[in-house]
Amino acid sequence: MIQYKTIEFKDGAVRLIDQRKLPIEEKYNEYRNHLSLGQAIKEMVVRGAPAIGITAAYGVVLGANSIDSDDPSYFKKEMEEVFEFLASTRPTAVNLFWALDHMRKVLEGNDGKPVSELKRLLEEKANSLHEIEVNINKQIAENGASLINPGDTVMTHCNTGVLATVGEYGTALGVLKKAHELGKKIQVMAGETRPFLQGARLTTWECMKNEIPVTLITDNMAGSLMRSEKIKSVIVGSDRVAANGDVANKIGTYSLAVLCKEHGIPFYVALPNSTIDFNSATGDDIPIEQRNPAEVTHVFGKQVAPDGVEVLNPAFDVTPNQYVTAIITEGGVAYPPYTESLKKVAGKL
Amino acid sequence: MIQYKTIEFKDGAVRLIDQRKLPIEEKYNEYRNHLSLGQAIKEMVVRGAPAIGITAAYGVVLGANSIDSDDPSYFKKEMEEVFEFLASTRPTAVNLFWALDHMRKVLEGNDGKPVSELKRLLEEKANSLHEIEVNINKQIAENGASLINPGDTVMTHCNTGVLATVGEYGTALGVLKKAHELGKKIQVMAGETRPFLQGARLTTWECMKNEIPVTLITDNMAGSLMRSEKIKSVIVGSDRVAANGDVANKIGTYSLAVLCKEHGIPFYVALPNSTIDFNSATGDDIPIEQRNPAEVTHVFGKQVAPDGVEVLNPAFDVTPNQYVTAIITEGGVAYPPYTESLKKVAGKL
Repeated sequence: MIQYKTIEFKDGAVRLIDQRKLPIEEKYNEYRNHLSLGQAIKEMVVRGAPAIGITAAYGVVLGANSIDSDDPSYFKKEMEEVFEFLASTRPTAVNLFWALDHMRKVLEGNDGKPVSELKRLLEEKANSLHEIEVNINKQIAENGASLINPGDTVMTHCNTGVLATVGEYGTALGVLKKAHELGKKIQVMAGETRPFLQGARLTTWECMKNEIPVTLITDNMAGSLMRSEKIKSVIVGSDRVAANGDVANKIGTYSLAVLCKEHGIPFYVALPNSTIDFNSATGDDIPIEQRNPAEVTHVFGKQVAPDGVEVLNPAFDVTPNQYVTAIITEGGVAYPPYTESLKKVAGKL
Repeated sequence: MIQYKTIEFKDGAVRLIDQRKLPIEEKYNEYRNHLSLGQAIKEMVVRGAPAIGITAAYGVVLGANSIDSDDPSYFKKEMEEVFEFLASTRPTAVNLFWALDHMRKVLEGNDGKPVSELKRLLEEKANSLHEIEVNINKQIAENGASLINPGDTVMTHCNTGVLATVGEYGTALGVLKKAHELGKKIQVMAGETRPFLQGARLTTWECMKNEIPVTLITDNMAGSLMRSEKIKSVIVGSDRVAANGDVANKIGTYSLAVLCKEHGIPFYVALPNSTIDFNSATGDDIPIEQRNPAEVTHVFGKQVAPDGVEVLNPAFDVTPNQYVTAIITEGGVAYPPYTESLKKVAGKL
């Protein structure tokens, strides 16, 4: 049973669970135009690559519905601005572009149709992307669960559950949820994931909602817990995977991968095929978003560093493919060398 | 010029800068008995192994002065409770025991002397330990500065400056301060050091007070910044070093050491000889303090995790000697194998 929904589209509005308020408050926000919804993506009301993709698809629908004209060429011109705005909200999230591309193709493939029909087709497409994503996540969870050993404590980073996606699973955390459902008696070790604390706030909350045993640690405890053999494997999601298997993911992922290598522990990455960017040859081609220094100097509005201190706040890091034990997608489990195996799981061979 | 003091003993009272209030507020607390001073150690008003040692020495003085009796045998019996209480405040801090041992020897070596004389000798001893510590830190800074390359960005963890010690330098941060004074044009990369954020709150504050360029990062950014060659070396302090060179230090130290090894970056540790525990053969012999889960689930009183979530909060981890490039003390720079070299710098050969 799933007791919470990341994204819902109903009566012409998008409803998002406000992930900034969790775990203190389970609050839902409603958005009726693409500008406020785009702002919600920017401000991380919703986050997680797959969830951002589906939100953006509905953003296109809201944008389309807000254009009050029956002239298809005017409509398409206005829609370009909608696409451009939504594309600017989170530059690293490849799923965002994947979703926008699909939505754009609806317009391109239906030249000559009336605006009302285009609006209907866009909504249909967004709903179908949503449904496809739900099924993709179910398949990722099934494919990944076989890699998780019974009784293991598995560390994860950031949040990659239902809140990062749509449906009943998620990506990396979905694999762990499936392993739990299969009776594998696993434990989740949730890294808090500074600066935005998605692990502390969201992963623990989801595990507790699903009655999966979970322990919260600060990110810097991982090495010591691997050395004492408390952590048996690590599984994370990804915001973008390059064609060679280099993984861009939440800052801190790379450090975990290095620690896994040092301790001979498997390091798994779970993601939908849509996260694989075959146009990025290596991780060096992936742009890294720099976020607001206040995320580091303040924790939930509470100042923890001196006024005016210099800060670095890259949202992501890149883990080179040699640290990655396996990449799990809905198409199967890819092993090195990834240049071949990723094409295979993505159905490109 | 030093503009702030960690510990002062004046007019029968101990004055501590309240490190929990920094960097928002520069507040000083006064303590007139050993119970409240011990509580201040427990609650980390004062922290850092050398500072805890000196604070405890003055705690003995406050304890002695609170005993209202001229009977030496009654006095000594009461003093046992004072020692026991102070020893219980931070179990991993070997300097605490070093200081208490020195104070205890004052009583043992002055049998037959009147209580008033014992009180005077205890105060004299605490003052002399304080002064010795100031000079030790000056020497550590000088010995370590030669290892720092001009123009380098050096990462440090937790706080090991004046606030962790006494005097004008500190241990690891003292080395960096000295390198700065020598015109080496270094940059400090301060890891925020979850859960208690000593790096974010204290190291940045000290660097800014001393006009040393400093950048604050979350702990999980270190790996990525080493990979991009922004961090050239790491220097940390220690709470206890075993006879074989295994290093117990603030949680997260071990992860940094592993990351240094993976990137071929030097990993230095700076500490007074009093931190070397020749009675602990290896790091396995060092007890690791488990602290309050609320330090992880709350940041400055702000809740960041669900109610009732399971938490691990070890205050320290152990870095095995094979990860340590060099250990710097007032006696010189020790290199592997440490079983020999530590004895040498500690003057035990």
